[in-house]
Amino acid sequence: MSVTPHKPSAGSRITAVDTYDIRFPTSRELDGSDAMNPDPDYSAAYAVLRTDAGDGLEGHGFAFTIGRGNEIQVAALDALRPHLIGRRVDDMCADPGSVSRDLVGDSQLRWLGPEKGVMHMAIGAVVNATWDLAAKRDGKPLWRFLADAGPEWLVSQVDFRYIEDALAPDQALALLRRGRDGAGRREAALREHGYPGYTTSPGWLGYSDDKLTRLAKEAVADGFTQIKLKVGADLQDDIRRMRTAREAVGPDIRIAVDANQRWGVREAVAWTNALAPFDPYWIEEPTSPDDVLGHAAIRRAVHPVKVATGEHVQNRIVFKQLLQSGAVDVLQMDAARVGGVNENLAILLLAARYGVPVCPHAGGVGLCELVQHLSMFDYVALSGTTEHRVIEYVDHLHEHFEDPVRMVGGHYAAPHAPGFSATMRPKSIATYRYPDGTFWAADAAATREATA
Amino acid sequence: MSVTPHKPSAGSRITAVDTYDIRFPTSRELDGSDAMNPDPDYSAAYAVLRTDAGDGLEGHGFAFTIGRGNEIQVAALDALRPHLIGRRVDDMCADPGSVSRDLVGDSQLRWLGPEKGVMHMAIGAVVNATWDLAAKRDGKPLWRFLADAGPEWLVSQVDFRYIEDALAPDQALALLRRGRDGAGRREAALREHGYPGYTTSPGWLGYSDDKLTRLAKEAVADGFTQIKLKVGADLQDDIRRMRTAREAVGPDIRIAVDANQRWGVREAVAWTNALAPFDPYWIEEPTSPDDVLGHAAIRRAVHPVKVATGEHVQNRIVFKQLLQSGAVDVLQMDAARVGGVNENLAILLLAARYGVPVCPHAGGVGLCELVQHLSMFDYVALSGTTEHRVIEYVDHLHEHFEDPVRMVGGHYAAPHAPGFSATMRPKSIATYRYPDGTFWAADAAATREATA
Repeated sequence: MSVTPHKPSAGSRITAVDTYDIRFPTSRELDGSDAMNPDPDYSAAYAVLRTDAGDGLEGHGFAFTIGRGNEIQVAALDALRPHLIGRRVDDMCADPGSVSRDLVGDSQLRWLGPEKGVMHMAIGAVVNATWDLAAKRDGKPLWRFLADAGPEWLVSQVDFRYIEDALAPDQALALLRRGRDGAGRREAALREHGYPGYTTSPGWLGYSDDKLTRLAKEAVADGFTQIKLKVGADLQDDIRRMRTAREAVGPDIRIAVDANQRWGVREAVAWTNALAPFDPYWIEEPTSPDDVLGHAAIRRAVHPVKVATGEHVQNRIVFKQLLQSGAVDVLQMDAARVGGVNENLAILLLAARYGVPVCPHAGGVGLCELVQHLSMFDYVALSGTTEHRVIEYVDHLHEHFEDPVRMVGGHYAAPHAPGFSATMRPKSIATYRYPDGTFWAADAAATREATA
Repeated sequence: MSVTPHKPSAGSRITAVDTYDIRFPTSRELDGSDAMNPDPDYSAAYAVLRTDAGDGLEGHGFAFTIGRGNEIQVAALDALRPHLIGRRVDDMCADPGSVSRDLVGDSQLRWLGPEKGVMHMAIGAVVNATWDLAAKRDGKPLWRFLADAGPEWLVSQVDFRYIEDALAPDQALALLRRGRDGAGRREAALREHGYPGYTTSPGWLGYSDDKLTRLAKEAVADGFTQIKLKVGADLQDDIRRMRTAREAVGPDIRIAVDANQRWGVREAVAWTNALAPFDPYWIEEPTSPDDVLGHAAIRRAVHPVKVATGEHVQNRIVFKQLLQSGAVDVLQMDAARVGGVNENLAILLLAARYGVPVCPHAGGVGLCELVQHLSMFDYVALSGTTEHRVIEYVDHLHEHFEDPVRMVGGHYAAPHAPGFSATMRPKSIATYRYPDGTFWAADAAATREATA
């Protein structure tokens, strides 16, 4: 995509919302396997906002899924098209939060959530596409677009409905004003050192112990100070794998463990405490993401192991309660699960209000590309620190993006290109579009031949 | 549909899952208008399980929506088809809970929830269709099919994952065994008197004060002892409408008020207390259905007004927490929001465990038809009482069902016909199928003519 300097005509409007069902055959390699998700095909329900501005700029956004059902997510994107076609691009980009509020507020679509699941992820995708377009038009990567924005404007982007009992607008404003102190110094530090990451690549459940050991040592050699292991399928296996990982990395590297919602409250406590001798740093998704009180009970019982969750937390309202009830030590924001950048801004503000570090979920398709921007904004202009904070990193599928993440010494390098790093390469779309992309068409032909 | 006595061949299988997008133009009459949903077009994403048993029996089920987006819900039903085609009907009907667990457990589809929103409602629809078929094959209305089942089997139908810390299987078994005492006497009482209902028909937000007064008086004359008013759009209006309603019905009829999630916690408390002089019985959906801690805070602050919620509560896990935290006085189960009869069985058991009365949400399209079965089962064979319990009743769209609810003196009469009362008349489907049914095709033609 060629990008020219932004001088759109004031009257330009959204002319098309193109949607794509894109699926990568990751299940064939057991990449991404865990106790709950044995065979994911990492997928994106992908939307492109096109305009008549004539500046070559488009807004790109997507919901991440793991295969079957991606077509439902695309149907939800398609349902939003009438809300977007004909909107004035200037208005949208001046106030992406208003786009979000309009979509969330459609009373008939709201019934399908409200603010959760398929419909909310679809809204998040097109709202993120709006933020992508806004940042591109401003010629800045999204993290800097946000960090340069005034606190008052950022507060105007947040929907405080249902969270005002925990975070009032004036409290949010105070946090953002405080966050400006030293922002220039931190921006320079970010450009020089990047933002710390941790890697899940060694710890997928489908990998052998030898592969686990090799990848864990490689991760340390690459500069990572934290790795993560998937657990929850079999306790004796997990004890062996945890011991293997600890032996591979030594005592000073953090090892997080991730149960992917496999357990109830009691099982979570017993299993986590059985792994405690190997010093797990956090237990992630020990139970249902809906169970605020369950997480609070688990946290009390597994101390000093930290409790982390968030990749499946549906919206700011559940995050609010996780914080109000002291249920988590680590909040794992996801860039493509909730209603877009503005809702994640609410979540970052809630976390700052309660002093809980945010360590985003990433991996999948493009989630690293997106979420780095939010953490970098948070560091530069809100929380002001990377202490106890790391962004998940998984080293696959980045090659499909125009502006892929760059890791340097276990750190995410700050993106330079304008936008939200959401734009997928046209060739990748043409190849992995389901079911008619070149890969899937050839795969179907081969299957027909094999069974003929 | 002709129904012949059930003697299906042991080998019969599911041969088709037919799905329909059915929409009724209710927004044109302001039926169903409330503070959050000003113009609903009551709709159903409808599924029919067909078999090769040759007995004329089909399983019918649906998700209820309010218009736009119903096609997303149908896409989700379609995504479940491959999980159902070819299944043995005997196995499904002997163990509908296993169908639910298989669908909820599909790891790729699970990502779209988990257990919430569009995907979960679709699973609920086809699981309810399975229960409908099972009850039809047994020749019993669903309420009696459940009441006649053994406690051990009912417990086997419940998915205790994520609720076992509040309700263990042996506790559920004890509740169901206790529930059998006097079941025969209660079944006779149910057949004679029916199950108490209350009516929302007078209180829609779009109605004039005169219409409110007239309908409220009619409701009392019809035998109802509780009515409900929609509130939350404008406080002064609500005070006037509440006064009007109280004057119409006198001091002895209960008036529930329903805010349909309009408020945050503080606003909910202030608004409810402003209506308190008119003695509202409960405040329903004062805030987001996701806000367990918010409901608990509201309940503490509006006593003695009761707090009710549930029609948008996504699953048993959130209901568990509402009960654990003492957040509700009244639990409002919905038959078509969660994952089917088996999940509602879990919810009824949780409510019984905590001693909280269940007053189901109904109305919409077919929700009265469905949920009456669950309350009647609860009365006969679980809670053993109708005290403090009423099923919502709204008097529209029943004519579209083969076995519509029958109200006698403000009570739901116990259904006789086998199944879950979910079967819609073929003519209604042919008329209101969207966009190609006869009503919608004529409507589109008229619109074209008017704008030509």
